[in-house]
Amino acid sequence: MANPNLKEEAIALHQKHSGKLEIVGKMEITDEKDLSLVYTPGVADVCKQIAEQPDKVNSLTSRGNMVAIVTDGTAVLGLGNIGPKAAMPVMEGKALLFKKFANIDGFPVCLNTQDTDEIVQIIKALSPTFAGINLEDIAAPRCFEIEERLKEELDIPVFHDDQHGTAIVVLAALTNALKVVNKLNQPIKMVINGAGAAGTAIANLLLHAGFKDITLVSLEGVVAKGEAWLNPMQAKMAEVTNLAGVKGTLKDAITDADVFIGVSGPGAMKKEHIQAMAKDPIVLALANPIPEIYPEEAIEAGAAVVGTGRSDYPNQVNNLLAFPGIFRGALDAGAKTITMEMKIAAAYAIADVLSDKEVNANMIIPDALDARVAQRVAEAVATTALQRERVAALSAN
Amino acid sequence: MANPNLKEEAIALHQKHSGKLEIVGKMEITDEKDLSLVYTPGVADVCKQIAEQPDKVNSLTSRGNMVAIVTDGTAVLGLGNIGPKAAMPVMEGKALLFKKFANIDGFPVCLNTQDTDEIVQIIKALSPTFAGINLEDIAAPRCFEIEERLKEELDIPVFHDDQHGTAIVVLAALTNALKVVNKLNQPIKMVINGAGAAGTAIANLLLHAGFKDITLVSLEGVVAKGEAWLNPMQAKMAEVTNLAGVKGTLKDAITDADVFIGVSGPGAMKKEHIQAMAKDPIVLALANPIPEIYPEEAIEAGAAVVGTGRSDYPNQVNNLLAFPGIFRGALDAGAKTITMEMKIAAAYAIADVLSDKEVNANMIIPDALDARVAQRVAEAVATTALQRERVAALSAN
Repeated sequence: MANPNLKEEAIALHQKHSGKLEIVGKMEITDEKDLSLVYTPGVADVCKQIAEQPDKVNSLTSRGNMVAIVTDGTAVLGLGNIGPKAAMPVMEGKALLFKKFANIDGFPVCLNTQDTDEIVQIIKALSPTFAGINLEDIAAPRCFEIEERLKEELDIPVFHDDQHGTAIVVLAALTNALKVVNKLNQPIKMVINGAGAAGTAIANLLLHAGFKDITLVSLEGVVAKGEAWLNPMQAKMAEVTNLAGVKGTLKDAITDADVFIGVSGPGAMKKEHIQAMAKDPIVLALANPIPEIYPEEAIEAGAAVVGTGRSDYPNQVNNLLAFPGIFRGALDAGAKTITMEMKIAAAYAIADVLSDKEVNANMIIPDALDARVAQRVAEAVATTALQRERVAALSAN
Repeated sequence: MANPNLKEEAIALHQKHSGKLEIVGKMEITDEKDLSLVYTPGVADVCKQIAEQPDKVNSLTSRGNMVAIVTDGTAVLGLGNIGPKAAMPVMEGKALLFKKFANIDGFPVCLNTQDTDEIVQIIKALSPTFAGINLEDIAAPRCFEIEERLKEELDIPVFHDDQHGTAIVVLAALTNALKVVNKLNQPIKMVINGAGAAGTAIANLLLHAGFKDITLVSLEGVVAKGEAWLNPMQAKMAEVTNLAGVKGTLKDAITDADVFIGVSGPGAMKKEHIQAMAKDPIVLALANPIPEIYPEEAIEAGAAVVGTGRSDYPNQVNNLLAFPGIFRGALDAGAKTITMEMKIAAAYAIADVLSDKEVNANMIIPDALDARVAQRVAEAVATTALQRERVAALSAN
């Protein structure tokens, strides 16, 4: 299934069109009258309305549907710190997907700085143009602070997709995988291999979704209270994960686990690890393009359900299932932030696109291009956001 | 000709479409293969090419055709400091015009800061996404420093349209107006009323185009060496204008002038001023929407040619004639800056769209919607830019 000419075809396609995005008008200008309405002198009255009522910027300009796709180019795909210019093709691709799946106008903002304070300051200064901020491919631990500060200081949704998009789709996949192995409504033991941005976000979302027994494993070993090498985020996670206080390596953590989630690197999972897991183990080996273990091997070792990040195997865990609908729902609801509840609602909406009859070991998650998904996610996210507003309004009485 | 429902129609149109811009893909994504080319995994090879050869960002991404329309919202139309959100409709309008007349992808960047250093720093940080910077509606004197510093520190064209766009179209109008009154190739005495961003830029461009006898008049009086109230930019201008050393008011400067250019305010020009001018005076009363003097009145007082900024009178001096072609030409030539020569070439290209037979007192400049203009300007600007490159290359030998 792999395309041997992928590289040449991809470069040729980008070259042919000089990139992937274009900015077009929603209306025609054919005569003097059109010009007087979209530009001077008529535009002055539109400006005055917004000057008097700043919230009208979302209904009288494109801002209400405009999301910045922001990167500093430090953690692009698996390529690492390749810089903001080289990150452009990914951000453009993301914008294309925002448009196709959620009719959102995404715009690449590739920043020529890797300074946290400066990135925060710039995004804040850009906020008159955007109704949402999608952070992308920014290296940990900087990405945590940038997102946290922006969430505090801006009144528009801010979402680091590499963290939360991945976490949402993992929760969706897991929900259906547990159905397949008949382990709903029972204690689940989980190991997450990889304790960076994605691993941390997955653990946090799963804890909020009600899972209790989660252990994170980093390159240094099992994340456990008291380990000298923990970074501040890992130290925080050690407080709420690894309840048994396991120390050591993946091998020590994996015994009797029901679920393995890999957001680490190629080949990090071995057959003997799977053999040490509980009955009917679920393996989500998400390192991309080369997973922690290939599905054939995992199944040979006894895995009951296997997912990867690849499109050429069943059960592709792809962020594309989450981010368009998340932002569509948040914008539609006028949400000022994306809450944990909205993320969980998104995950269940993705899982529930597949009926119980459709769900099986090779179909725990909808296809990345399934057009139903974004709409369902948007509805669930908007409903959850609006419920929260209503609760807040009532609480204020 | 004025539209009595302009305000209501303009607001309704903006409301109906929720603004004027949308960001769309240049190609479709219909299947897994498309996705693998525009996004992962294929996009990784495109990123790698750019990481290795950063200049390829202009041919492999949308950057090469993308111009930021940057404002801080401090001098929007005649509305003043209405802030970045209220400036959005103007910047969107500008983007629409960039697309229609020059197929350029313009994007509004409305900044929530009025600090010069911060604005410079932000635009520099945004430069991986843009191949050109159009500064717009930024108050003087901040606009001078911002443009100057960006021109020094960036290797892409930076152009403050309120200064240079206006100056270019004035030079174009003047060129044909002088034909009408048969005053080509003779000394011309000129008065520019208004010594802010536009007045200064007009004076500078006209000096470079070969005019020698120019006097600027500000609200405080005639710009003359030694006046205590001169700001730094006016002090600079006093060195190269007002050769006769006139002091006083517009009344003192205007005697025997061949040309009056108003970039000041409503009603600043009186009939008696025109009566004091030389034979066949040319009056460009560009304050908008209410000119320094209305055309009927100016003609009654003896003006031979009158231009305004309005579309409901002949001879509309409209920046739209300049900025799309200027940027198209600069981008096509890969110019790193927009030089004085390129601006002068643009002005002559605009003037020359009208043949000698077409030029008359009511037709010194093409219609703002004349589709020929941007293309002619682009060709002239690109040719001039490339000539400069060739001269530079030869000089290096």
